[in-house]
Amino acid sequence: MNAPAQTTAPIRGCPSTMGDERQLNTTTLIRHAARTHPEQEIVYRTPDGGWARYTYADCYERVCRGANALRAIGVQPGDRVGVLDWNSRRHFELYWAIPGLGAVMLQMNLRLGAEDLGYVAGHSQARYVLVDESLLPVAEAIAAHVPGVQGWIVMSDKPLAQIQTTLAPLLHYEDLLAQAPAAMDWPEIDERSAYSACYTTGTTGRPKGVYYSHRAIYLHSTTMATNLGMTLDDCCMPITPMFHGQSWGLPQAATLLANKIVLPGRYQAEDTAPLTDAMIAEGVTVTNGAPAIFQPMLQYIETLPVKPDFRRLRMLSGATEPPLSMMRGFYELTGAEVVQAYGATETTPLVTVSRLKPTLRQKLSAEERWNLKRKQGLVVTGVDIRLLGQDGQELPHDGQSAGEICLRGPWISARYHDAADNDGRFVDGWWRSGDVGTLDADGYLKVTDRIKDVIKSGGEWISSIDMENLLMGHPAVRDAAVIGIPHAKWQERPLALVVLRPGHAATQEELHAHLGSAFAKWQLPDQVLFVEAIPKTSVGKNDKKRMRAEHAQRYAG
Amino acid sequence: MNAPAQTTAPIRGCPSTMGDERQLNTTTLIRHAARTHPEQEIVYRTPDGGWARYTYADCYERVCRGANALRAIGVQPGDRVGVLDWNSRRHFELYWAIPGLGAVMLQMNLRLGAEDLGYVAGHSQARYVLVDESLLPVAEAIAAHVPGVQGWIVMSDKPLAQIQTTLAPLLHYEDLLAQAPAAMDWPEIDERSAYSACYTTGTTGRPKGVYYSHRAIYLHSTTMATNLGMTLDDCCMPITPMFHGQSWGLPQAATLLANKIVLPGRYQAEDTAPLTDAMIAEGVTVTNGAPAIFQPMLQYIETLPVKPDFRRLRMLSGATEPPLSMMRGFYELTGAEVVQAYGATETTPLVTVSRLKPTLRQKLSAEERWNLKRKQGLVVTGVDIRLLGQDGQELPHDGQSAGEICLRGPWISARYHDAADNDGRFVDGWWRSGDVGTLDADGYLKVTDRIKDVIKSGGEWISSIDMENLLMGHPAVRDAAVIGIPHAKWQERPLALVVLRPGHAATQEELHAHLGSAFAKWQLPDQVLFVEAIPKTSVGKNDKKRMRAEHAQRYAG
Repeated sequence: MNAPAQTTAPIRGCPSTMGDERQLNTTTLIRHAARTHPEQEIVYRTPDGGWARYTYADCYERVCRGANALRAIGVQPGDRVGVLDWNSRRHFELYWAIPGLGAVMLQMNLRLGAEDLGYVAGHSQARYVLVDESLLPVAEAIAAHVPGVQGWIVMSDKPLAQIQTTLAPLLHYEDLLAQAPAAMDWPEIDERSAYSACYTTGTTGRPKGVYYSHRAIYLHSTTMATNLGMTLDDCCMPITPMFHGQSWGLPQAATLLANKIVLPGRYQAEDTAPLTDAMIAEGVTVTNGAPAIFQPMLQYIETLPVKPDFRRLRMLSGATEPPLSMMRGFYELTGAEVVQAYGATETTPLVTVSRLKPTLRQKLSAEERWNLKRKQGLVVTGVDIRLLGQDGQELPHDGQSAGEICLRGPWISARYHDAADNDGRFVDGWWRSGDVGTLDADGYLKVTDRIKDVIKSGGEWISSIDMENLLMGHPAVRDAAVIGIPHAKWQERPLALVVLRPGHAATQEELHAHLGSAFAKWQLPDQVLFVEAIPKTSVGKNDKKRMRAEHAQRYAG
Repeated sequence: MNAPAQTTAPIRGCPSTMGDERQLNTTTLIRHAARTHPEQEIVYRTPDGGWARYTYADCYERVCRGANALRAIGVQPGDRVGVLDWNSRRHFELYWAIPGLGAVMLQMNLRLGAEDLGYVAGHSQARYVLVDESLLPVAEAIAAHVPGVQGWIVMSDKPLAQIQTTLAPLLHYEDLLAQAPAAMDWPEIDERSAYSACYTTGTTGRPKGVYYSHRAIYLHSTTMATNLGMTLDDCCMPITPMFHGQSWGLPQAATLLANKIVLPGRYQAEDTAPLTDAMIAEGVTVTNGAPAIFQPMLQYIETLPVKPDFRRLRMLSGATEPPLSMMRGFYELTGAEVVQAYGATETTPLVTVSRLKPTLRQKLSAEERWNLKRKQGLVVTGVDIRLLGQDGQELPHDGQSAGEICLRGPWISARYHDAADNDGRFVDGWWRSGDVGTLDADGYLKVTDRIKDVIKSGGEWISSIDMENLLMGHPAVRDAAVIGIPHAKWQERPLALVVLRPGHAATQEELHAHLGSAFAKWQLPDQVLFVEAIPKTSVGKNDKKRMRAEHAQRYAG
């Protein structure tokens, strides 16, 4: 598929006299940081679990060497170059080196299965793949799926001779850098050219390619900085993986402001204490991640004899709604603010950020503020949003009407790359998110469900997510899932699957009574099944597809 | 002159899949503010000196009515529409209504003489001019210069019948709004189309037209917000005139963040007490202006029994270097930070902002920090800067080498509108500012002179501004000017003109000794002339052209 023709032209007769032909290139961001704040630090975790640091000036020199090295081995503008790495400094360097050259950085989600990841590398026609040494087994597992790769570039502190792998031909990142010139004459790239590619698995069928433009990344960075309230004085730790959705754009927004950056390298949810320690030691003020990462951090902080002062810290939280108890816990123990955000691979991704409006500051009680923090927030400048109802009509912003969230804007996807079908997601210039939500009169978005998980009963929608969250608020419940089961009369009816905490007990009647605080009687699940565990997907979400299949006949007859 | 052809195309083979064809329009900013923060306030000063307020929602409705009204009277995309007004709410509405329609807002500098202002209106071929009632005499004085104007639109709270003017045909803004629909279906405009025009008098010959694009204004707004550290919680009072250089872009940056805005209407430097009172009452956190406005504010604050708490306030100061004593005064009395900035009509205008880098926070003593505040600051993200020496070579950033400041970027001028000549200001894709400055290793710019005022002696440059500032620091000196006088051997040599304070005395030797603290012996003025007064231009600057002509023969022979 080709790029769309430029559909507009400047208004005739009175052209602007500005440098409008100068292109928004991501190289501008790292070059600015290195020129104006050369001494600013980038702290990174080493494979042995220690921490090291270098400066934007050091980093930029390696970015230049990296671009020269890739050019020297034949990488051309438009070529796709894969990266398989944690949130490392080398990964950060490649964020600039590959796209700066005009090539396209392929974000390789190491959590995907070998077949899907191989498909992604093959579909994107990656010419080279850069692999962190620790991920060589992942690369080896997909190598057979991507015969077109011309070479694998291992990233390691060890010399090439000590690297054990079946990958061939094998190159060495540090060797390439050492041989390459330290100065780079960057091309000025048309801003509509692809900067990076990220494949989404949120659609039906095979993963689909989202190819971000330089323009989209540049504009998204300014939007993230302004709408999150980031300044020159911030220190950012991107915990969200850099291998998917560019860590929500935080590395680039931080670079725009030449912020001190702390890169956590490889980490696990069970082992977030070193990250928390680094946040304290380095003075991190902006971080991002999922509740699954933040929750163990809070538990670790609870064990600390002296609580850290995180009053400047904003923890951007996405993926799923964070428990209110966790948000309060961070605030009460450290002063940190957990800030909900909403977005998707297709939206670069920031669509909403939950900030308290200055006009609400005086109006809301403390309790009302906490309730507000359960919403996903205000739409950022530049993105258009609308809610579409079941009949395709646009719904009012009344905080009640739930419809599919549709988005458009300069950094919102307009199509999938070279896809046989677009999954019906692009309609009338809008991207259909597949998420259901409400917008209140103050402009706050609340995501209530995935459209495929929403329970359609008697012409009404019941939010499975809201019901799950409320169930998990019951003291006896450890985990819960709510799904819609086909029903002859009502189309669907809810079924709840509940895992009890060890040593606790609850009955269906008790849980019904608990849910009654927020749900009408007709919305309550017809059955509550007590189970050992909730089936999960590879990324840890409730596997509702599987549960729906398993229980499809439960309300039959 | 036509717009340049699009010189680039997306890299082939791998297009982006994003909504790159969606245009950056300024309408996006006001529409976002009105949709997401409809209740946020805009406070404005009324002609009787009182204050009134309305909301973004109210404002946006009037913006829509204004655009519909202008369309109804025949304004077409690309037409120029002049505005002659103070920093009023109607002016703010026109910032969005005129360009949103695809027409071009002509900024009419009411401080220009009738001939120059008439030339500007005529050269731009303004079709309509909107005039605040108080400025009808200014419009009447230029009417003869602009026969092409189809109508004058008076802005007043009085009915049309009570307006006394010779202007014809005369329309009434409030009548037009009342008759126009409140909903507007905004066109999506190619972002390279002109948003507004501002004529610069900083060149030789006639004023020259700078036509800002929608793209330039949008990007400049994001850059101002990020580089000044503005957030959702700011409250902005644009004191810099909105009729020239769009008040340095502050109204648009404030709208991007849906900030509360306080519009000071008509004010005078002698009467800044009401502005200061409003800053206290409304909680202003960002303002802008020249030292000539801030100085009387400080004097007023000195008289207040209770000093205001301005710890959140940043006062963006431009035009000329603010006295250090004034910066310290504000800080010590109120906690406010005076923040120097540098720019020009041709640069939209923000080029540098003087913020303390986080990496310098620990390193510098309090005294060093104050010294640093005398510089104009760090170049903003997205603007390229270089210093050109006398031989056209690029100079190092060592804090010593002084060269002409050259700039380029997406919101830096690339030409003048329909100009017979470009004054030699556009060279190799760079705009030559005509200012001389240095850049230090930390990236801070210091403007040392206008290039035409710099003294060229024996192949070296001597800064006239630095020497004048130091002379005025001498207790006996009330005013001083330093100019270059032709010299047979050294090309030029400095001459100092000095006005002594009443009752004080000084000799050339004493002043030489005083200057010796910062200048080398060869840089000292060959002569110090004690005079009654320094000749000034109409805007109060030293008239160096006249002084150079008067003293041209002083070092001859």
